[in-house]
Amino acid sequence: MKKYCIGVDVGGTTVKLGIFDIVGNIIRKWEIPTRQEENGKFIIEDVAEAITSVCEEYKIGLEELLGVGIGVPGPVMPDGYVEVCVNLGWRDRNPAKELSKLLALPVKASNDANVAALGELWKGGAAGYNSAVLFTLGTGVGGGIIVDNKIIDGAHGVGGELGHMTVNLQEAEACNCGNHGCLEQYASATGVVRTTKKILTESLEPSVLRGKDSFSAKDVFDAAKEGDELALKAVDVLCMYLGMACANCAFTVDPEAFVIGGGVSRAGQILVDGIFKYYVRFTSLTQKKAIIKIATLGNDAGIYGAARLVL
Amino acid sequence: MKKYCIGVDVGGTTVKLGIFDIVGNIIRKWEIPTRQEENGKFIIEDVAEAITSVCEEYKIGLEELLGVGIGVPGPVMPDGYVEVCVNLGWRDRNPAKELSKLLALPVKASNDANVAALGELWKGGAAGYNSAVLFTLGTGVGGGIIVDNKIIDGAHGVGGELGHMTVNLQEAEACNCGNHGCLEQYASATGVVRTTKKILTESLEPSVLRGKDSFSAKDVFDAAKEGDELALKAVDVLCMYLGMACANCAFTVDPEAFVIGGGVSRAGQILVDGIFKYYVRFTSLTQKKAIIKIATLGNDAGIYGAARLVL
Repeated sequence: MKKYCIGVDVGGTTVKLGIFDIVGNIIRKWEIPTRQEENGKFIIEDVAEAITSVCEEYKIGLEELLGVGIGVPGPVMPDGYVEVCVNLGWRDRNPAKELSKLLALPVKASNDANVAALGELWKGGAAGYNSAVLFTLGTGVGGGIIVDNKIIDGAHGVGGELGHMTVNLQEAEACNCGNHGCLEQYASATGVVRTTKKILTESLEPSVLRGKDSFSAKDVFDAAKEGDELALKAVDVLCMYLGMACANCAFTVDPEAFVIGGGVSRAGQILVDGIFKYYVRFTSLTQKKAIIKIATLGNDAGIYGAARLVL
Repeated sequence: MKKYCIGVDVGGTTVKLGIFDIVGNIIRKWEIPTRQEENGKFIIEDVAEAITSVCEEYKIGLEELLGVGIGVPGPVMPDGYVEVCVNLGWRDRNPAKELSKLLALPVKASNDANVAALGELWKGGAAGYNSAVLFTLGTGVGGGIIVDNKIIDGAHGVGGELGHMTVNLQEAEACNCGNHGCLEQYASATGVVRTTKKILTESLEPSVLRGKDSFSAKDVFDAAKEGDELALKAVDVLCMYLGMACANCAFTVDPEAFVIGGGVSRAGQILVDGIFKYYVRFTSLTQKKAIIKIATLGNDAGIYGAARLVL
C-alpha cells in the first residue's frame, strides 16, 4: 500500500527533505549538507542514502512510497533534463532519472521556485485554490505558476521566471541577467534598497534612512510602517511594479490567487495592500480580481511542493 | 462510430461553422448571420438548426459527432458560464449547456481568441507544437495561450487577454479599458496609426505619410517596407512592445512558439524580425528562444480551434 511520499528541495548549501503522508501531513523533515565537490557529483547519491536511512529509522518500506519529488535550483526541461545548474555545479544531468534508478521509485523533478509555488497552493497561502502565481521576493525575485494544480514549467524551463519580466523600458541600470528593467530590479530586497538609495540621492527629503551607512529592505519597510514618507515612496515603487507583474499574469494565466513569499514578504499587509492597489488599477478591463496573500510555508514550501509533484 | 466534430465561431455579425473529421480535415464550412435581436436570444437555436440541417445534407448522423466546440466573443468561465457578452447582447448565459441540450451532444465553449490560438496550434502557424501564445493584432489586440495542447482560460475568464498587459507606465493616453499603457495601444492597427501620427506631430522628419488626411496601419507598413524612416520608427515601437509582451509570456508560460495573427500580421516578415529582435533582448536570461511565426488560418482559426476543443 502506498502511504507516503518524499519531497526534496536541493539548495546550494543544504538539501531539505520531508516525508509526507498522501494527504499532506508532514511526518519528518530534515536536512543534509549539499556536497558541491566534483561538480555536485554526490548530491543525488546523498539524497538516496538520506531517504533510505530515514525511512528505515521510521520503519517505512520503500514499497510504501508513492515516489519522490525533487526541486532543483535551475531550469528543468519537461523530461527532467537539467542542462546547467550553476549553484550545484551540475551540467547535463537528469537528477530525476538518476534518483529513480538509485531508489527504484518514480521521481519527478521541477524548478525549485515552481515547486515552492505548488507547495503554497497545496498547503500554504493558496491552499484550497486550483491556480496561483507565487512571487518569491528575496535577494532576487523568483516565481512559480500553477494552473489546474499543475506547475507550468514551460517549453524551455523558464516558466515562472517572473523576476525577469520586463516592467520598465526606461531603466538605465542593467539587471544581473543583462536586460534592463526586470521586475527583480525593483521587487527584490536588493531592489528596494536600490530604489531607496536612488530617492535619497535625488531628493533632499528627510528620512530616518538618510545618512545611514547601510540599511536593509527590512529597514525600509520598518521606516515605511512608521510613516517615513521617503521609505513609503520606495515601497510604493516596489508595489507598483509588482502590481503590474500581477496584472500581466492575470491577463496571461489568470490565477485565482497571487502569493507573495520570500524574505521581503515578512513586511506583510503593507505589501499586500500596496500591490493590490496597483493590480486593480492595471486590470481595469475586468471587475473580477484574484486575491493576493502572503506565503505561509516559508522555507518548507519546497519540500511540500516537491512531495505534491508525485501525488 | 464517432467520425466528425463541429467547430462554431460566434461573431457579432456572422456565426462561422465547420464540420471536421477527427484528424482535422475540413469537410464543409459555412456561415449564418448572427441574430442580435432580443439580446441574441436566437443565436444558439440558429446554430443548432444550422448544424442539424447541414449534417442532414451531408448524410452525417448526429450520433457520428464527437461533439461541438464553440468560440464566444467574451470571457467564458471554466463551467461554460458567460456573464456578459457585449457584442451579442448575452447576459447570464451558458451557451455550451444550451447547445448541448438542443443537440443532445457534448458541447464545450471557450473565448473566441483562445479558441483561435488552439486552431493555430492544431492546424496553423504553430502546428506540431504543444504550446503557443497567439497575439491577434486587429483593431484591438486579442490573444490566446495554449499549454500542453490546452487553452488557459483562466480563473476569471481573462486568460490570454494579452492586449491589456501593461507595457508602458509612462503612457498619458487611456486605453479603451481605462488603464494607461496597454499593449493594445501600440500593437493594434489603431495603435500603429496613433504612434505614427504622434511621431509626425512631434518631429519634422519627412515621410510619405506626412500631409495625408488619413492612413491605415497597412499604409504605415508599406511605407516602412519602402524604407520610409518615420514609418520604420512607428513599426519599431509596435515591435518593441510586442517583443516585451512575448518576453514576459516567455517568463510566465514559456511557450514553444509565438504566433502573430489578425489583419496587422499581413505585414509579414518585417513584423516577425522586428518582434524577434526585442524578444531576444528582453530574454537575455536564457539562450533558448521560442520561435515567432505568422498565423496561417486567418478567419478560419476559430472554427478549427473550436472543433479541436471536443477532440
